[in-house]
Amino acid sequence: MKSRAVVLLSGGLDSATVLAIARDAGYVCHALSFDYGQRHTAELAAAARVARLLGAVEHRVIHLGLGDFGGSALTDAAIDVPETPTEGIPVTYVPARNTVMLALALAWAEVLGARDIFIGVNAVDYSGYPDCRPEFIEAFERMANLATRAGVEGAPLSIHAPLQHLSKADIIRRGLALGVDYAQTVSCYQAGADGRACGVCDACRLRRQGFEQAGIDDPTLYKKNHT
Amino acid sequence: MKSRAVVLLSGGLDSATVLAIARDAGYVCHALSFDYGQRHTAELAAAARVARLLGAVEHRVIHLGLGDFGGSALTDAAIDVPETPTEGIPVTYVPARNTVMLALALAWAEVLGARDIFIGVNAVDYSGYPDCRPEFIEAFERMANLATRAGVEGAPLSIHAPLQHLSKADIIRRGLALGVDYAQTVSCYQAGADGRACGVCDACRLRRQGFEQAGIDDPTLYKKNHT
Repeated sequence: MKSRAVVLLSGGLDSATVLAIARDAGYVCHALSFDYGQRHTAELAAAARVARLLGAVEHRVIHLGLGDFGGSALTDAAIDVPETPTEGIPVTYVPARNTVMLALALAWAEVLGARDIFIGVNAVDYSGYPDCRPEFIEAFERMANLATRAGVEGAPLSIHAPLQHLSKADIIRRGLALGVDYAQTVSCYQAGADGRACGVCDACRLRRQGFEQAGIDDPTLYKKNHT
Repeated sequence: MKSRAVVLLSGGLDSATVLAIARDAGYVCHALSFDYGQRHTAELAAAARVARLLGAVEHRVIHLGLGDFGGSALTDAAIDVPETPTEGIPVTYVPARNTVMLALALAWAEVLGARDIFIGVNAVDYSGYPDCRPEFIEAFERMANLATRAGVEGAPLSIHAPLQHLSKADIIRRGLALGVDYAQTVSCYQAGADGRACGVCDACRLRRQGFEQAGIDDPTLYKKNHT
């Protein structure tokens, strides 16, 4: 019998690649997305498309009121998304986001009897988010094995971060080899309702550079006023 | 200036005592409760009363659809709450519950600039839940300090579990000394809408034994058909 895995799926380039990698490794994939008070829902629509195209057996969306806490340009309409590179931890950082998403993935994994959780964090392009570092992922895995029946009953859980040490260009090459259609994904922090990207935020910049460095035409749909 | 703390507050005996302890230690307390698809909401009403009576400056309730995942008698109406003691991890275990609640407390703490989170777990009476053990709390704290700005910027977070090694009787004595009115709290896994307790579930049994062992009259309001 194939093993089940929970795959965190944002609808962006990285997590779509992770889903393709998990499926290629033989897992039955249960995709999990979050509506955590993002300014736009284009990425959730993208997540649903990607889950279907890449053969997830199930796709769930959990609503999380992190926007109520404030503190991030991605959830707080009073903070502008920066359109030029910034130093240090960016204001688009969502407080404890990966911790919260992995915790809920852990809850679902436990119910499914899954011992594998996949997340698309990336240390090379990590944009200054502390919860994308390898040492965070390792500490979460250790904690998860003390938190759950699996840990108690001797069938340990693994947190897989297969993009951890890849460049954006390597991620794109890997995904294309596995059949990912990146035109279906949305990475932009301020995408329109139709999923079109702004082309100027941090996420757009990293994504565009990735296609350039991979020597591949960028299939991203940009807004019309983008030059 | 007083430090802020996030205090997880269920509306039960333990977390009410923790809130009293945190306030007594001088923290400005922000209470956090979860509506995670419990069968009853009497404990959320109790949490609101307790937050007010014990001087929390704020009380927030986050709705979490853990019930959608199933797997626990507390969130899945198809599983009966056991009325006699059981061996091993009980079916009232909610998957990864403390991990999920601490993760969201961490998100709020980061926005508030709080470096202290309080939780009412208890290793002595822990009823077989893996996520109540001291080694779990330590592993969560370590992970939290790698996950957040605080960890990066050198102002570490602490997860406080002040009931960790206390008996239920000790918890009750401590809370009474700090002015907790336990008649306002609800511990029962299947309390009525009016907050009255069944008297027979694990939570009721542990609570009643605590009052007996402390030599204190049990102020709990029980259902009328309870003998």
